[in-house]
Amino acid sequence: MTTTPHLVIDLNCDMGESYGAWHMGNDDAILQFVSSANVACGFHGGDPSTMRKTVAAAISNNVAIGAHPSLPDLVGFGRRVMQITPQEAYDMVVYQVGALAAVAATQGTRLHHVKAHGALYNMAAKDAALSQAICRAVRDVDANLVLYGLAGSHLIQAAQDLGLKAASEVFADRSYQDDGSLTPRSQPGAMIEGVDTAVAQVLRMVQERLVRSVNGRDVPVQADTLCIHGDQPGALVFAQTLRDALGQAGIDVRTMS
Amino acid sequence: MTTTPHLVIDLNCDMGESYGAWHMGNDDAILQFVSSANVACGFHGGDPSTMRKTVAAAISNNVAIGAHPSLPDLVGFGRRVMQITPQEAYDMVVYQVGALAAVAATQGTRLHHVKAHGALYNMAAKDAALSQAICRAVRDVDANLVLYGLAGSHLIQAAQDLGLKAASEVFADRSYQDDGSLTPRSQPGAMIEGVDTAVAQVLRMVQERLVRSVNGRDVPVQADTLCIHGDQPGALVFAQTLRDALGQAGIDVRTMS
Amino acid sequence: MTTTPHLVIDLNCDMGESYGAWHMGNDDAILQFVSSANVACGFHGGDPSTMRKTVAAAISNNVAIGAHPSLPDLVGFGRRVMQITPQEAYDMVVYQVGALAAVAATQGTRLHHVKAHGALYNMAAKDAALSQAICRAVRDVDANLVLYGLAGSHLIQAAQDLGLKAASEVFADRSYQDDGSLTPRSQPGAMIEGVDTAVAQVLRMVQERLVRSVNGRDVPVQADTLCIHGDQPGALVFAQTLRDALGQAGIDVRTMS
Amino acid sequence: MTTTPHLVIDLNCDMGESYGAWHMGNDDAILQFVSSANVACGFHGGDPSTMRKTVAAAISNNVAIGAHPSLPDLVGFGRRVMQITPQEAYDMVVYQVGALAAVAATQGTRLHHVKAHGALYNMAAKDAALSQAICRAVRDVDANLVLYGLAGSHLIQAAQDLGLKAASEVFADRSYQDDGSLTPRSQPGAMIEGVDTAVAQVLRMVQERLVRSVNGRDVPVQADTLCIHGDQPGALVFAQTLRDALGQAGIDVRTMS
Repeated sequence: MTTTPHLVIDLNCDMGESYGAWHMGNDDAILQFVSSANVACGFHGGDPSTMRKTVAAAISNNVAIGAHPSLPDLVGFGRRVMQITPQEAYDMVVYQVGALAAVAATQGTRLHHVKAHGALYNMAAKDAALSQAICRAVRDVDANLVLYGLAGSHLIQAAQDLGLKAASEVFADRSYQDDGSLTPRSQPGAMIEGVDTAVAQVLRMVQERLVRSVNGRDVPVQADTLCIHGDQPGALVFAQTLRDALGQAGIDVRTMS
Repeated sequence: MTTTPHLVIDLNCDMGESYGAWHMGNDDAILQFVSSANVACGFHGGDPSTMRKTVAAAISNNVAIGAHPSLPDLVGFGRRVMQITPQEAYDMVVYQVGALAAVAATQGTRLHHVKAHGALYNMAAKDAALSQAICRAVRDVDANLVLYGLAGSHLIQAAQDLGLKAASEVFADRSYQDDGSLTPRSQPGAMIEGVDTAVAQVLRMVQERLVRSVNGRDVPVQADTLCIHGDQPGALVFAQTLRDALGQAGIDVRTMS
Repeated sequence: MTTTPHLVIDLNCDMGESYGAWHMGNDDAILQFVSSANVACGFHGGDPSTMRKTVAAAISNNVAIGAHPSLPDLVGFGRRVMQITPQEAYDMVVYQVGALAAVAATQGTRLHHVKAHGALYNMAAKDAALSQAICRAVRDVDANLVLYGLAGSHLIQAAQDLGLKAASEVFADRSYQDDGSLTPRSQPGAMIEGVDTAVAQVLRMVQERLVRSVNGRDVPVQADTLCIHGDQPGALVFAQTLRDALGQAGIDVRTMS
Repeated sequence: MTTTPHLVIDLNCDMGESYGAWHMGNDDAILQFVSSANVACGFHGGDPSTMRKTVAAAISNNVAIGAHPSLPDLVGFGRRVMQITPQEAYDMVVYQVGALAAVAATQGTRLHHVKAHGALYNMAAKDAALSQAICRAVRDVDANLVLYGLAGSHLIQAAQDLGLKAASEVFADRSYQDDGSLTPRSQPGAMIEGVDTAVAQVLRMVQERLVRSVNGRDVPVQADTLCIHGDQPGALVFAQTLRDALGQAGIDVRTMS
């Protein structure tokens, strides 16, 4: 008699993006729905005190903690493309991952993963050299860390080439092209608006490892982790609806071990 | 027959205080004379790339690497007193020590010590709560780290209370008061100008554990580590002269193990 | 036949303290109740784009625009005391006032006043040299600017000594000592909680130029401008209540010309 | 009898790029050779105190003062391309020009020109929308300011379209393409090494309004102002040699009025 292996997906969310006197996000609420938290490390948000509080909140919700390193662009929230060298990317990832690793250590825990933030994530997804630099930085700090990257992108390839565990990230609210890439936001149909459609896309990605492209093609996709946007209107409703649907489909929500 | 235990002193120097396109200090030259380096961690100097280069230089000179965390005051070089809470001090020390620890890890080494920079060092020396916060931060990140602090100050007391190894720091170019504290720079006679006088003060602190105060009193002092100022005129001449004098006196220059 | 001169008070509020992706305050609502806006200039909040939007909002509400320069402490929101020299204070005030003056010029208007922010305001109130440096900076940039400062403080004295117009600032929600100074927040009774009590204190300061101290003494006070805190709970209710009470008492709300 | 109009060129140099405790450049020496100074405004260098000192030095050398606004990238010295919107460019130029204008006002003088720094200069030269945003910012702050931009670039075109005076900038140490653009630094032959060749190129640009391209073609060029690099080895020797050659050729060195 054979047993069906359990289907699993990780739900991750960016967190700890407050800065000093400025508050951002809805971390305490969203922590109830996700299995991993990407914690800002000071370059786009997340001062040292915010980092401490965010790590504490993640621990008390039993959520895996990852570093969320960014380009050094506080006023632009790390969303603006900057032409940096792979060496600069390496150095800034080492710095930020190390800072958060120490915060975790002071609270008796360790980092689980690293996910680049904003423009750094998007730049690396399309740039092999940048992806390799980021993945080398992660490996050199701690070879047990899981690298989160866009499914099918250079980030996943670079992580695998270096022997890092890689978690392929998918999106519920973004449509896909025939080649498995995300439809650019500048194009019509890039965003998936309805909650039901978004949830159905996730279920199919996990159960059938397929996504229906904007052109109606079924495209293979690896869905290890799903990005939940915490501070958008309707985020909590979507998270609750998704958790319910995953539960009914017998899909476990937990982080990659 | 008894053997005389070897006399030992550590020579430390602040390093890696360049920032981006701006160069500071004479690190490569001074590294030949010291046994431990206090590496800037980004808050008063020392961007991530500079930190990588500084750690590499310290390794190749076989010099122990320590973190040199600062108040967040780049334009003031960490030299301006800021009223921070002990919790803020804790958080900023954790962050900076962690960042440098990761840089060290990527180069196959570990941190040896932590020495607060500039105003943070001076503020903590006189403030028990601040000293305790800094020492707790160091212990919580890595209980094997050595805490460098002004001899006889709250920093040393706090480190010892928490079970941290503490290195009492003395100065060659500063005069001392009857109570063992440094003469404030605002007072006449605060600075010791002559190289020979400075070297003699160091030798006596190591050999006799005494320093002659500005009032002519012999004051007991614990001299585990001596601060060498790297970027002042005559720094290299002083360092060479001191090394020669220590060698002739049979005093080893090495870091606290 | 003589005519009674109209009683007048200016209501000012700190504004434009958002930064990049981070939102702060309730500027659009509070602009309806005040006659002058203190606009953050980038050192504690208020990036260049936020400054542009804030100036535009003030213009469209016919509210006088002032610069709100701060210590360089973004993560601490300019609230932490820093030991700066008078020269440093001078330089940072010139820089920030100039930046906002240019933003105003691009929208066809001019600055009306300068009010130091947070710790810089509090430090200067008690420090003659710092007050003189700030007032010289304001005068040297534009001698027509009005200097807002704590009533009875060194800031007002320094402004008058330099020939600057000075607006003495009072508070509705703070109690006063017998010497006319504010009760420190660390002491009981520092804050006035009830809206009616606060409004009554303001009316009496304007009509009788007196304030009842915590010890029950009537203390003379100069009330040119009142600080409204925009982002506290109940701020809008208080502002509306105060405006109504001022209107019924025949007190005009307008800025010092 | 007709008189030959005097040939004229402006020599400009980037200045005031020190930051806090970090020193950069050789401003005092180079100020003796140039007619206009581009003063850093805090975003890539040049803290408020440095700005004050730099303006004072320019005044005492009778050198015209211009703002040198940059992308907000202190650690990258404003040299890294960032994807900013035209509106962001507008806002950051207004802010920085205003800050320096105030510094100038406190010393009894006014700004003469604006030259974008580093990556912002290079990006704008190739981008019409960015050039228009920068030129609108300059005009909106003060329509009398002269816009310095790469000869033949979008910056010059945008300035002229808006009615701003424009100074076309040429380089002594860079070779030119057949279309009048600079040879990219990544290509061989981009840099002109010899002092005599560089000086000869300048003389011909001023006297004949031509430059010999890397392909040997004579290309028309407008040479209103020449950029002197202050902190490179040999900068002072080059500046002296150039001044001597210009003097012997009867070419005046002065800024555009």
